[in-house]
Amino acid sequence: MNETKQDGAGDVVEALCAVVPSERVTAAADIGEDLLHDEAIGIFGVRPLAMVAPQSSAEVAAVLAWANGTGTPVTVRGAGTGLSGGAVPEAEGILLSTDAMADIIEIDTDNSMAVVGPGVRLDQLDEALAPLGLVYPVFPGEYSSSLGGNVATNAGGMRAVKYGVTRHHVLGVEAVLASGEVITTGGKFVKATTGYDLTQLILGSEGTLAVVTQATLKLSPRLPHAATVLAPFAGMEEVTEAVPKVVASGADPMILEYIDMITLAAMGTTLGLDLGIPQEVKDTALAYLVVVLESAHEDRLEADTQGVAEQLAELGAIDVYVLPPKAATELIDAREKAFWVAKANNANEIIDVVVPRSAMPEFMNRISELASETASWIAGCGHAGDGNVHMSVFQGDPEVLADVMKRLYAIGMELGGAISGEHGLGTAKRGYFLELEDPAKIELMRRIKVAFDPNDILNPGKVL
Amino acid sequence: MNETKQDGAGDVVEALCAVVPSERVTAAADIGEDLLHDEAIGIFGVRPLAMVAPQSSAEVAAVLAWANGTGTPVTVRGAGTGLSGGAVPEAEGILLSTDAMADIIEIDTDNSMAVVGPGVRLDQLDEALAPLGLVYPVFPGEYSSSLGGNVATNAGGMRAVKYGVTRHHVLGVEAVLASGEVITTGGKFVKATTGYDLTQLILGSEGTLAVVTQATLKLSPRLPHAATVLAPFAGMEEVTEAVPKVVASGADPMILEYIDMITLAAMGTTLGLDLGIPQEVKDTALAYLVVVLESAHEDRLEADTQGVAEQLAELGAIDVYVLPPKAATELIDAREKAFWVAKANNANEIIDVVVPRSAMPEFMNRISELASETASWIAGCGHAGDGNVHMSVFQGDPEVLADVMKRLYAIGMELGGAISGEHGLGTAKRGYFLELEDPAKIELMRRIKVAFDPNDILNPGKVL
Repeated sequence: MNETKQDGAGDVVEALCAVVPSERVTAAADIGEDLLHDEAIGIFGVRPLAMVAPQSSAEVAAVLAWANGTGTPVTVRGAGTGLSGGAVPEAEGILLSTDAMADIIEIDTDNSMAVVGPGVRLDQLDEALAPLGLVYPVFPGEYSSSLGGNVATNAGGMRAVKYGVTRHHVLGVEAVLASGEVITTGGKFVKATTGYDLTQLILGSEGTLAVVTQATLKLSPRLPHAATVLAPFAGMEEVTEAVPKVVASGADPMILEYIDMITLAAMGTTLGLDLGIPQEVKDTALAYLVVVLESAHEDRLEADTQGVAEQLAELGAIDVYVLPPKAATELIDAREKAFWVAKANNANEIIDVVVPRSAMPEFMNRISELASETASWIAGCGHAGDGNVHMSVFQGDPEVLADVMKRLYAIGMELGGAISGEHGLGTAKRGYFLELEDPAKIELMRRIKVAFDPNDILNPGKVL
Repeated sequence: MNETKQDGAGDVVEALCAVVPSERVTAAADIGEDLLHDEAIGIFGVRPLAMVAPQSSAEVAAVLAWANGTGTPVTVRGAGTGLSGGAVPEAEGILLSTDAMADIIEIDTDNSMAVVGPGVRLDQLDEALAPLGLVYPVFPGEYSSSLGGNVATNAGGMRAVKYGVTRHHVLGVEAVLASGEVITTGGKFVKATTGYDLTQLILGSEGTLAVVTQATLKLSPRLPHAATVLAPFAGMEEVTEAVPKVVASGADPMILEYIDMITLAAMGTTLGLDLGIPQEVKDTALAYLVVVLESAHEDRLEADTQGVAEQLAELGAIDVYVLPPKAATELIDAREKAFWVAKANNANEIIDVVVPRSAMPEFMNRISELASETASWIAGCGHAGDGNVHMSVFQGDPEVLADVMKRLYAIGMELGGAISGEHGLGTAKRGYFLELEDPAKIELMRRIKVAFDPNDILNPGKVL
C-alpha cells in the first residue's frame, strides 16, 4: 500500500511539474507538518501526494485541468487558520497553497475598492489601507487569516453588527472552475442583476465549487475615533433585551459582544486581563455586554458614548464602565483570543451556532440544561448584536460529546438558527449538517456542486 | 391552431382547479390586459393559458408539482412594475400571481426584521414600519412594486450608496422549487456559513430558479432628519471626481445622484419641477449632483450638510443649493419618475448599465460618440454613488437601435461593468447578455438552472 502511494505521489509530482514550473511543486515528504491541518480542535493532519503553490490564475487553471482529467482531489489552503477542517487535504489528493498569490493588486481610492490575491493576509491589507483612511471592515478573530480563506468561509467577526460579513464586501472574484476555465464575476460595483450571482455562490463554499484567484473588495472610510463601554448585567436575558435598544438608538454600534462570567474569568487567568471590576460586581454579574462605537467626530463619539452608557444603566446594567483606550484594546484582543483560551483550557469542541439574536437567552438556557443533563461543561461568549454564539464544550467521552454536539445544533436550528455562523462546516460539522438539514436542500446543493465540479475534485469530503 | 389552444387552455384551467381551490384560477379570456405585460418599453403582452393566484406555499407547491409533471411554463407576476419583460408569461404557460400572498407576516422589533409575503408592496411595508421607527431601506424608483419582484430582480435604487441593494437586506426566503418541494433558506441572522447560500442564488434570478413565497428582511433604524444639496457642475468629470471625496468625508451620504442638463430640463417640462436655478447657471452647468444626507440628530445633520456644501464648492461646483424640504422632495420624486419622463418623451429604449463609478465619465463620453456616430440621441441620469447609469435612447430605426444597444452594453462591460444594475435581463436584455457574456459563465449558469429546474418550467425564455 505504502509503496503504491509513494509511486502515486512521485507520479503526481512529475505530472504537476509538467503543467507548472517545477519550483511551484513540493513533494509529499517535504511538506511541513503545519501545512497538513488547520486549527480545528482535535483535527489530524493528512499528508497529500504533493503541494503546489501557483503564481497565477493560469497556473491554477493548468493544475485544475490536470486534476480534473485525472480525478485528483484538490484542497486549497490559505493561512490555515480555519476552525472546521476545511483546509485539510486528502491523502490521495494535492494541496494547493495560495501563498504565492499574496499581492495586493490594486487599491482604488476613486471607487473605494481593493483587488487582492487570495494569499493576502488581513493584517497585510489593513496596513496598506490605514494610511489612505480606508478600512476593509471585516475583522474575524484572526488577522493573520488570508483573504482567500475569508472568502471561502464567508468570515464574520465582531463588526458584523455594523458592517455585515465577508459576503457583503466581496463584489467580485476571479475564479478557476474544476474544468480549468477561468471566470470573472461581479466587479467594481455594488449593484448588478445580470444573471445568477456566481460571486455569492462561490463565497462561503469552502473551496468546493471553484478556486478563487482574485477578489474585489469594497472598502469603507476608516473612522478615527472609537470608544468602548463595558456593562455587567445580572444575566443573559438582560443583555439580550438591551441589544435591540442600543441598535435602535441610532448610535450605530460597531461591536456588541457578550461575555459570560466564566469566560471573562478565564480571560483574566489565561491572558492576564484585569479590567479592575470590583469583586462585588463580579459576584453578581453573570453576563457582560461590550459596546464599541466609532465616529469621524470626537465630540459626537463622546455624546454617543455618554448616551449609550446612560441607556445601559436604565436597562438594568449593574454598573457601566467607559474603558480607557488601553483597557478597551486589551478587552477586545482578549475577546478575539477566546478561542485560544478555550483551546488552552482543553475544550473538546467549539461551536459557532447562529440564532436570531432575540433567541440567545433561550438558546443559552437550553444549553445549560443540556450541559447538566449530560454532565458536560459549556461556556462562552459571542456576538450579541448578531446572534452568533461561540461556546466551548468540555466533555471527555467522545460518544457523549457527539450526542451533545448534535443536540446543540438541533436546538440552534429549532430556534431558527444555523449550524455555523462563520467558521464553516468543513469536516468538523459536515456530519451534523447532513443529518440535521432538510434533505431537499442537501440534494439541491449536491446538484449545484455537480454543476460546478462534476468529477468532485474540489475539496471532496467537505461541506456536503 | 386557435382551437387547439383554446382546448389546451380549458384543460389547464380544469387541471389547476384540481390542485388548488377553483377561486384561485382565472381562465385565459378573463385575465385583464394589464396583467399580460410589465412596464418594459416596447413590450407586447402575451395571454397565457390561465392565471392562478395561490394563497400559500402549499398551493404554490401544488401548482408547480403539476406544472413540472406536465412541462407547463410558469411565469410569476408581482406588481408588474418590472422594466425588462421578466413577468411576461408564455402563451403555452400559466401566470402565477402573488397578489393573494400580500401579508406582512411579522415585524420583529427585537431582531429588527420583517417577514413578508411576496405580494406585499414597498409602500405598504413602509407604512407599517414608519410608526415603529424602522425602515426597509431599499427604495427603487417604484414604491408600488412588490417585495417578490424586488427579490426577483435584486432591486436597487438611489439609496444603494449607503444601504446596498435588495441582496444585502434579504436574509432568507421560503421558496418552492420546480419539483414542488418547499425549502426555507437563511433566517433571522446576518451571518451563516452553513452550505451554499441558496438565498443569494435565488435572489436576482428573475423567477427562473424558484418561486419565493416569503422573505425575511433586515430593517434599519429610521433616521428622522434629512437634507438635500444640489450642485451644478460644468460636466460629468467634475461630478465623478467629487463623489469619492464626499463618500470619504464620513458624512455617509444616503443618495448621490447625477442628472444631466437635458434630463433636468425635461423633468421641468414634463413634471413641472422648478428649482429656481438662475438661467446663467443653467447655461453653464452640464451635470448636476444631488447629495442627500440623513441623521438621527438635527444639529449633526446641519453641520454635515454645511460641510458637504463647502466641500462641493471647493470641488468646483458652479453653485451649491441646500434645498428647502418641499423642493428637495419634488426633486427626488422627479428623479424617481425619470423613467416615466423618458417613456412620455417616447424613448425607444432605456438602459441601466452599471460601471465602476470612476468610469462614468468615460462611459458617458463614449456614449456621446456612439450617439453622434449613429444619429441617436442619448440622455439621462443615474446613481453617481454606485455607477449605475440610467439613459434613454432615442433611435427610430429598429436595426440601428439594436446595434446601438449592443454597443452600449459592450462599452459598459469593457469598462468593467455589467449590462443591468437593477432592472434585470428579462427578455429585453437577454439576447445581448447571451451574445456578450463569457460563454463559460453562461454554460455554468445553465447547469445551475438545470440543478433547480430540469424541465425548464420556471420563467423559460428569460435571463438565459
